[in-house]
Amino acid sequence: MTTMAPENLLPLDETAQDLLFREARTANSFTAEPVTDEQLRAIYDLVKWAPTAMNAQPLRVVAVRSPEARERLVPLMAEGNRAKVAAAPLTLIVAADEDFHEHLPTTFPHREGVREAMAANPGRPAMARFNASIQLGYLIVGIRAAGLAAGPMAGFDAAAVEREFLGDGALRAIAVVNVGKPGPDAFFARNPRLGYEQVVTTV
Amino acid sequence: MTTMAPENLLPLDETAQDLLFREARTANSFTAEPVTDEQLRAIYDLVKWAPTAMNAQPLRVVAVRSPEARERLVPLMAEGNRAKVAAAPLTLIVAADEDFHEHLPTTFPHREGVREAMAANPGRPAMARFNASIQLGYLIVGIRAAGLAAGPMAGFDAAAVEREFLGDGALRAIAVVNVGKPGPDAFFARNPRLGYEQVVTTV
Repeated sequence: MTTMAPENLLPLDETAQDLLFREARTANSFTAEPVTDEQLRAIYDLVKWAPTAMNAQPLRVVAVRSPEARERLVPLMAEGNRAKVAAAPLTLIVAADEDFHEHLPTTFPHREGVREAMAANPGRPAMARFNASIQLGYLIVGIRAAGLAAGPMAGFDAAAVEREFLGDGALRAIAVVNVGKPGPDAFFARNPRLGYEQVVTTV
Repeated sequence: MTTMAPENLLPLDETAQDLLFREARTANSFTAEPVTDEQLRAIYDLVKWAPTAMNAQPLRVVAVRSPEARERLVPLMAEGNRAKVAAAPLTLIVAADEDFHEHLPTTFPHREGVREAMAANPGRPAMARFNASIQLGYLIVGIRAAGLAAGPMAGFDAAAVEREFLGDGALRAIAVVNVGKPGPDAFFARNPRLGYEQVVTTV
């Protein structure tokens, strides 16, 4: 038995807890209210501080804002995701940069030769995907910090999205995330979460 | 040019922004102050609400608390991580459960046959790793929400950690995270973050 109410164990105030986690919900429809570049920049400038291994920061984002770009993206989504991408004010293609090591002389400057060592490391693509996925978690929290709803989606043709939006280089598409204010009937019924005892074992 | 200060674009209050992102730092040493089971439960009960694909929730955690368990973990860490794991009040082995589909009849109840379909899906291990990595991002934010510092590490012998702590089953070790109050000289100099223009492209 706990002896304190759980919220007293968290210095983060309850309004923030609700905004980021408890009240926040994945949105499946959006109002027409725009999400500005300034809002997206504020989100990035907050979540960029969260940690990655070797400060690698492999997250890259293509912000799909123009109707023309959106029209190219919609058919690459799984059928169940097309209508909501078509209607969202802003959609983010979230990618992992397998060539993150090119930035290491700047981002991890104290380790001599780190760029060359990582260039030769066959684990680099997996490291890019792993750390960009962690950063996707931060990004979803950051979208909520801006008072916006996120609608992250894994159902899309990743190879086609990469060809159409990410060049022929080192960027792997890991998710597509709608961003905006929730519209009518935006939320499905909340599904159950696993209990603490199902997730955490203490040894 | 932005016309508002970035913080005005974020409804999340500045104290919370600092606690979770701007002032929070990866800690490399810890005080002896314990991290209680109640604190860990409060962290989990907050971050469990953040989204995963199909509500899959593949995150699993082994909380290493006893001196005996810690002694088994230390030699499985990369050399540069051993002293800090030896000294942390609590260390979390973060894992991805490739058999998350066993819970889908409860966690994703509206889709008939989802457990069987996912059981036959060869993409299941990758889906487990991807979503548990996103949840690792949430977990690090949650540790900070509890006023604690996280020290996430990727340098360890994953196969050995799985053998020693995760049984012979479907759990893959993806990270090891120290948790506690920062100790003396806990923080390295903060490394630079990539700028918005290096990360975000708008189309």
